[in-house]
Amino acid sequence: MTFFEQLSNRINSIDSILCVGLDSDTAKIPIHLQEEDLPQWSFNRRIIDATHQYTAAYKPNLAFYETESGWKSLVETIAYSHGKGIPVILDAKRADIGNTARHYAKLLDMADAITVNPYMGLDSLSPFLSRIDAGIFVLCKTSNSGGSDIQNLTLSTGIPLYEHVAKLANGWNENKNVGLVVGATHPNELQRLRDITPDLPFLVPGIGTQKGDLESAAKNCLSSQGVGLVSSSRNILFAGEEKSFDKSAGESAKRARNSLNVFRN
Amino acid sequence: MTFFEQLSNRINSIDSILCVGLDSDTAKIPIHLQEEDLPQWSFNRRIIDATHQYTAAYKPNLAFYETESGWKSLVETIAYSHGKGIPVILDAKRADIGNTARHYAKLLDMADAITVNPYMGLDSLSPFLSRIDAGIFVLCKTSNSGGSDIQNLTLSTGIPLYEHVAKLANGWNENKNVGLVVGATHPNELQRLRDITPDLPFLVPGIGTQKGDLESAAKNCLSSQGVGLVSSSRNILFAGEEKSFDKSAGESAKRARNSLNVFRN
Repeated sequence: MTFFEQLSNRINSIDSILCVGLDSDTAKIPIHLQEEDLPQWSFNRRIIDATHQYTAAYKPNLAFYETESGWKSLVETIAYSHGKGIPVILDAKRADIGNTARHYAKLLDMADAITVNPYMGLDSLSPFLSRIDAGIFVLCKTSNSGGSDIQNLTLSTGIPLYEHVAKLANGWNENKNVGLVVGATHPNELQRLRDITPDLPFLVPGIGTQKGDLESAAKNCLSSQGVGLVSSSRNILFAGEEKSFDKSAGESAKRARNSLNVFRN
Repeated sequence: MTFFEQLSNRINSIDSILCVGLDSDTAKIPIHLQEEDLPQWSFNRRIIDATHQYTAAYKPNLAFYETESGWKSLVETIAYSHGKGIPVILDAKRADIGNTARHYAKLLDMADAITVNPYMGLDSLSPFLSRIDAGIFVLCKTSNSGGSDIQNLTLSTGIPLYEHVAKLANGWNENKNVGLVVGATHPNELQRLRDITPDLPFLVPGIGTQKGDLESAAKNCLSSQGVGLVSSSRNILFAGEEKSFDKSAGESAKRARNSLNVFRN
């Protein structure tokens, strides 16, 4: 079963396209957890317990796990999510020359999907793309304001770079394992990208804290096969405080799932 | 003292622009080291002992350290290099939205400089660029063949994307802490980039295994201030085998340093 088939099953079985981003910043997690051996794992376990019934996939961003304790927490978190049957997308935004990319691709031994950066071209992504069982989300049009600095440059062919990247990614989809990262903060561009690459699932961050357009995200993230995800992180993880943080997170995830379904159905 | 001032001192004191890439692939290190607690640290320590007198900077690529044991090895390796007065560049090729990039920028608490990917634009790099004591090498024209897929696209202004990135990076150099990553495998483009950004130090990979042009690399890596690096990795790390691997690495580093100096002086 491919990653996107697995994800499709998960989306349909719990009726949710919500992806919860585990940007579990140690400095922001409740103080009573900060004294535990692996604070991020303690936090993530409670977040998963509270949100899993509304969550199609979890997406830890590796930036928050690049310490010795962080790495242990990440391994535990992935195993726990898998124990509940929920796929894990590593938000890594990696790419490197072939020899090195092969090492980064080993991240897919521990998780189910990954985000990658297209700037270094096809051979820097080939070790990921050759993983037919994995999902490879190529950064296309990102949700940050600076996303326009490079991605919106107009090419000599008259189209913006991000459109060209989408078309390239579409051509890299021989194994039916390619998706795109497209921010919710630019609804027109999201719509345009959906039109030109109907078969690619989108991972759409930028709702919640980043105030992206929820309707556009829910409608346009889905491929022709009905597969896609809208991601929210801080609005769910840090919805509440201290002892009740997990209850608040669960409620926030439920609200996000329901809001997305209004526009999806 | 800025990173590039520190690097300039190092280059001048040992008369070398050689950067040794610590792509210390566990599968390739000598078998007698693989049984140690931290094989990569055991390997790197011997490599540093054998090569430090010819080496202006070490450059561990994070792809090879993304395990629990790898992370410990990386921390030890950086401390050991610092103990010998040699700066360390993390080859990370990172970038992310602002909130997350701030976490990645913490990598600069452990090392002196980092490589970053420009695709997500200025705000994804700002947390790095604001570190006035660090060196920030922006990927511009990479040494891999796929580097042309995106980087060589012609913009509506008639210039290739990599040239535009170089000009942007030049504008981001308010703190005099920006350099470019430019592969040795494209001598004409390397020359052109040197001409349009004379003040930016270049980090030039792609000699050795990747067969880049040594002369072009040595001549063009240097900024108007005489600062720049040419990087070699596998040709040095894996120059020999088993018990004599470190002696071979030292000899290979010495040859590389001397070859570069022929064209530099």
